Amino acid sequence: MIAPSELHAYGLRAKTASQTLAKASPQAKNTALLGMAERLRARRAEIEAANRADLEAARLGGLSTAKLDRLRLDEKILADLIAGLEQVAAMPDPIGEIEGITTRPNGLQVGRMRIPLGVVGFIYESRPNATVEASALTLKAGNAILLRGGKEAFRSNQVLVEFFRESLSEAGLPEDAVLLVPTTDRAAILEMCHMETLDLLIPRGGKDLIELVRREARMPVLAHAEGVNHLYVDAGADLEMAVRITLNGKVQRPGTCNALEKVLVHAAEAERFLPRLETALTATAVELRGDERARTILPQINPATEADWSTEYLDLILTLKVVDSLEEALEHIARYGSHHTEAICTNHHPHAMRFLREVDASLVLVNASPRFNDGFQLGLGAEIGISTSKLHAYGVMGVRELTTTKWIALGSGQIRE
Amino acid sequence: MIAPSELHAYGLRAKTASQTLAKASPQAKNTALLGMAERLRARRAEIEAANRADLEAARLGGLSTAKLDRLRLDEKILADLIAGLEQVAAMPDPIGEIEGITTRPNGLQVGRMRIPLGVVGFIYESRPNATVEASALTLKAGNAILLRGGKEAFRSNQVLVEFFRESLSEAGLPEDAVLLVPTTDRAAILEMCHMETLDLLIPRGGKDLIELVRREARMPVLAHAEGVNHLYVDAGADLEMAVRITLNGKVQRPGTCNALEKVLVHAAEAERFLPRLETALTATAVELRGDERARTILPQINPATEADWSTEYLDLILTLKVVDSLEEALEHIARYGSHHTEAICTNHHPHAMRFLREVDASLVLVNASPRFNDGFQLGLGAEIGISTSKLHAYGVMGVRELTTTKWIALGSGQIRE
Repeated sequence: MIAPSELHAYGLRAKTASQTLAKASPQAKNTALLGMAERLRARRAEIEAANRADLEAARLGGLSTAKLDRLRLDEKILADLIAGLEQVAAMPDPIGEIEGITTRPNGLQVGRMRIPLGVVGFIYESRPNATVEASALTLKAGNAILLRGGKEAFRSNQVLVEFFRESLSEAGLPEDAVLLVPTTDRAAILEMCHMETLDLLIPRGGKDLIELVRREARMPVLAHAEGVNHLYVDAGADLEMAVRITLNGKVQRPGTCNALEKVLVHAAEAERFLPRLETALTATAVELRGDERARTILPQINPATEADWSTEYLDLILTLKVVDSLEEALEHIARYGSHHTEAICTNHHPHAMRFLREVDASLVLVNASPRFNDGFQLGLGAEIGISTSKLHAYGVMGVRELTTTKWIALGSGQIRE
Repeated sequence: MIAPSELHAYGLRAKTASQTLAKASPQAKNTALLGMAERLRARRAEIEAANRADLEAARLGGLSTAKLDRLRLDEKILADLIAGLEQVAAMPDPIGEIEGITTRPNGLQVGRMRIPLGVVGFIYESRPNATVEASALTLKAGNAILLRGGKEAFRSNQVLVEFFRESLSEAGLPEDAVLLVPTTDRAAILEMCHMETLDLLIPRGGKDLIELVRREARMPVLAHAEGVNHLYVDAGADLEMAVRITLNGKVQRPGTCNALEKVLVHAAEAERFLPRLETALTATAVELRGDERARTILPQINPATEADWSTEYLDLILTLKVVDSLEEALEHIARYGSHHTEAICTNHHPHAMRFLREVDASLVLVNASPRFNDGFQLGLGAEIGISTSKLHAYGVMGVRELTTTKWIALGSGQIRE
């Protein structure tokens, strides 16, 4: 337990650091990022020791294999983190960038200048690599970050944050630009919701966390919620492509929020598509569930319950439904989707355009796998996550999405008539 | 009094309307806007009758002259509203616009598509013209709006909203796209903060309102708060220009949030600038207040109290302070400013650039009047207000700021390796 006042002191420290960071040179920020990369390389043993302790405790605590996998910092993940830090350092600095300058009839030049947000509060699950990725992106954007990671990763996070703080200090920047909440007590989340020093709160996790933060937070919230993602296979679609996309969406990495969870297929294709899909899935461990109409074609699969339509499995389960029209698919997605990632497989141009326009999701795809909803895949270089909140940044968030703009006006004595 | 459940039904009606509006054609939206303009022209008598009743009640209630002015819908204001509606109708439709399409190495084309927000809740003071302006902009952006105006303007608002709803209906659009909360009870504000059907809440008003909404709202909030706005007169500035900007900022329209409230002058210029300013203000009714150093130069002016530095007067009062450096001015503004509008008068390029970069305000000006912080003046065509919230839209908000983007991806069967 930690007293609320002590936690609020962390917010104040981050706020003070953010004021220096907003004015920091691109060079100083990049030096800190590269210093962190160097520490991940040179001091791997310390990270691995802390991570082993976390893994051991989690195993004793009975954590599932999938969750243990997310907790593990292996050689591959460390190499990816190092490459990511180097990439972020090499990116152009967004701060101070001036956009869209126009000259008004009176000669006043007006435009917008890109600026940091201030202090970002980040509440996330037990992937310790998120600690490094989120800190790197917020630093590049000129912000301070207050981290509250999952309790299973606490020892790993402590070492990683310590390395980041040393790198900041070495670069002449305030080490409080990266701060870890010194407790994994759930009450700390509520405290963060009430901190006046946070300019933005990013909760990443399940429905309960998102709802708690939405209700309690007094600052802007960019929720990173679950993905109940659909593929709609249209009449006349390329069924081979539809099978390939379904397979990729479901099995390539089932534990991620951009994995495919439901397939809606037009009645005109169901009798050809569903058996082909079942055959293609034979070699995998995917469990199929279906509505009544799907089960008349694949009688051996389990029946879908009402709960199936709104469940994010994050597992090798896929639920199938036969629909009579694009409209029915759109209505189903509007009702059960979670505004995360929605895809259509079609050859019919008006249907592709209508699906693109009418589906309300952070990424809408035509003839491509939902697994592309990822900052690196969409060309941002890196991501802090995928916002399912509509304002400010809907979808993948990189460095730019962690900044904002103010208006600027350059005059020569203009006054208003 | 109105039961909370009844108010929530208004939110649901707006939500339902917003779903149709998101898909509405540009032509239908523009027909509704022009229909409203036509009603303001043809049925002026009905508006004037309702406005007279509001004005009469307000006068009996002892409203100040300044507030009565804001409540009045005279011929000039109606003409401006008609011109504004015609301008908004003539603007390009932002919805469905596709931005920044790039092609990824695998051939996937990714970009963003502009979409509406959904339902905007708007809590504002007693200017009935805001009812028309806000409704026009949210409609153009494909949103529905739930309006909660000041009680003094209730009769005027009822007539204006009725005209808007007739215009929507005539254009084949759902009339619930523009809804007025049927009470001016303050409890309705709290209810709006808790409505799950609102996608954005815009409170426009004083500190108490903004704080209440920030604390209670469960949806994103774009606060439109007060302007404690400064002009810093640098050493070596063009003093004639500085006097002209001060005069314009203070007296051209003192009751607005972008009016000038404080002047900070460098000690090197104070002895020449302050007497000139006083002379220039002789013909006006402006009351000057000053810190000790200002009063050694202008001994006859009133002393400034601590409260003066953080007060938005919205009146013919101006407070003066002598500072020793740009740093001191920056610190004073960071401490007492309200992130609204801040200006510098300088001939020194590094000082201009430093002021632009370091001052955290929705508009930062060099050598121009703060009165330019206005959607029309900055080239947006119209505005719903000036956001002092940093996320999504910091500063003047027009049609585009009432929309967001989703990601789209156009493929030909791409899957993730």
